[in-house]
Amino acid sequence: MVIPVEDIADPRIADYVRLRDVDLRKSLEGGRGLFLAEGEKVIRRAIAAGHQVRSMLMTAKWLDGLSDLTGGDTGGVTVYLVSDEVMEGITGFQVHRGALASMERRELPSVAEVLRGARHVVVLEDLVDHTNVGAIFRCAAALGVDAIVLSPRCADPLYRRSVKVSMGAVFSVPYARLTDWHDGLEELRDHGFRLLALTPAENAVPIEGAFTGGRNALLLGSEGDGLSSRWLAEADQAVRIPMSREIDSLNVAAAAAIACYLLTAPGH
Amino acid sequence: MVIPVEDIADPRIADYVRLRDVDLRKSLEGGRGLFLAEGEKVIRRAIAAGHQVRSMLMTAKWLDGLSDLTGGDTGGVTVYLVSDEVMEGITGFQVHRGALASMERRELPSVAEVLRGARHVVVLEDLVDHTNVGAIFRCAAALGVDAIVLSPRCADPLYRRSVKVSMGAVFSVPYARLTDWHDGLEELRDHGFRLLALTPAENAVPIEGAFTGGRNALLLGSEGDGLSSRWLAEADQAVRIPMSREIDSLNVAAAAAIACYLLTAPGH
Repeated sequence: MVIPVEDIADPRIADYVRLRDVDLRKSLEGGRGLFLAEGEKVIRRAIAAGHQVRSMLMTAKWLDGLSDLTGGDTGGVTVYLVSDEVMEGITGFQVHRGALASMERRELPSVAEVLRGARHVVVLEDLVDHTNVGAIFRCAAALGVDAIVLSPRCADPLYRRSVKVSMGAVFSVPYARLTDWHDGLEELRDHGFRLLALTPAENAVPIEGAFTGGRNALLLGSEGDGLSSRWLAEADQAVRIPMSREIDSLNVAAAAAIACYLLTAPGH
Repeated sequence: MVIPVEDIADPRIADYVRLRDVDLRKSLEGGRGLFLAEGEKVIRRAIAAGHQVRSMLMTAKWLDGLSDLTGGDTGGVTVYLVSDEVMEGITGFQVHRGALASMERRELPSVAEVLRGARHVVVLEDLVDHTNVGAIFRCAAALGVDAIVLSPRCADPLYRRSVKVSMGAVFSVPYARLTDWHDGLEELRDHGFRLLALTPAENAVPIEGAFTGGRNALLLGSEGDGLSSRWLAEADQAVRIPMSREIDSLNVAAAAAIACYLLTAPGH
């Protein structure tokens, strides 16, 4: 069903308001149990992963390309059709970025569920940057990480920017969120995971060769401060990527790429 | 010397106009032989690397923190002091991003100069995204890549966004630009470099173990299409990072991080 909407303040398109206001979006999306997918490829992947569409928002030029998903004029998906001006007013973007879909969140699986059968796991502690979270999911998917576990305060993988940067990998890599930061890592150890903490600290062992057979969980810390001292103390082994110059260390996404490669490399 | 400027159109601050207009900035910066450094840390690194300051632009709150660089009211560096409103009008940013400096470009060294004494080299073909270029420089600096060689059309490492994402690594990793795309790689081979082309192609060999002793040059292609068939044909060996799922491959910055790690790892 295609419904033209001409007013930015129309309550039917309230799922899409003020897309660049991170704080507002967090409370709105959490409160309504929705997330936004942006662009045809990502929308298709969200649907293929089983997420229900609440509605879509697009300008006329995207209608045809997505008609198989929306059912066109008579289909079951509600498409709000807006002008370029309204689209830009709502989103603050250039409209060439394409269609948006508001999708239903689902209840996350438990940590125990995502760990079942997993061998290579990444654990993210308190990352704040949605781009980094998305980049790490994309990497994890490409390199064959089995599951991701998030600390209670880690940034949301279903925030629009994470979803986009991940290219939809947030729909394909199973993930769960710890409810307890202080003692949460015990659950991984109870499942037989060895906990390896990535840190730039000099006294950590070089990461090459640190992953042995069996179940390994790689702990990655936040952008500013790295892993908390609590999680570093809980880890079985601190590992580092050797750095060669007195410049800033690698950013967390680059460090994660290298560490995930070594975590999942054949023979580890 | 601190000079208050109240008008966005004041010709004295023309180095800083329309910061978010990539095309305009490219021609302006090329034409005047300047680049912009953003934020205290990056400005300090540019100066430490020997770049001359043309001028700085900031709001009042940054004056004190940078007074050792500017000489304060009576120093030799010209500081244009603007209000938050003028700063935002000029840059299109939130002003909390800090001070800007317009710096003189220097003539790039020749390819032969940056290859001299180098053992681990990265060659970038036609990257278009300044964020990726900056991320690769940061990675290269952290991991000990000796030099970077750019194809004639590769995006500019001194574009503001590259400089910023690199955290100033564009000042510490020596780089040069090929003048000839078609036959340019011959110069690397003449210097004894083995050319390894990173590609997702199935018939490439796994990258682990592909770097042997001696001089290695890692070729990285553009975001959309990867390496050109010409450069792939010129390479001594095509290498790939094994991928495990049917999702998009790693992005070029993540792939570069892994490949640079393997390129420079001890024993390679």
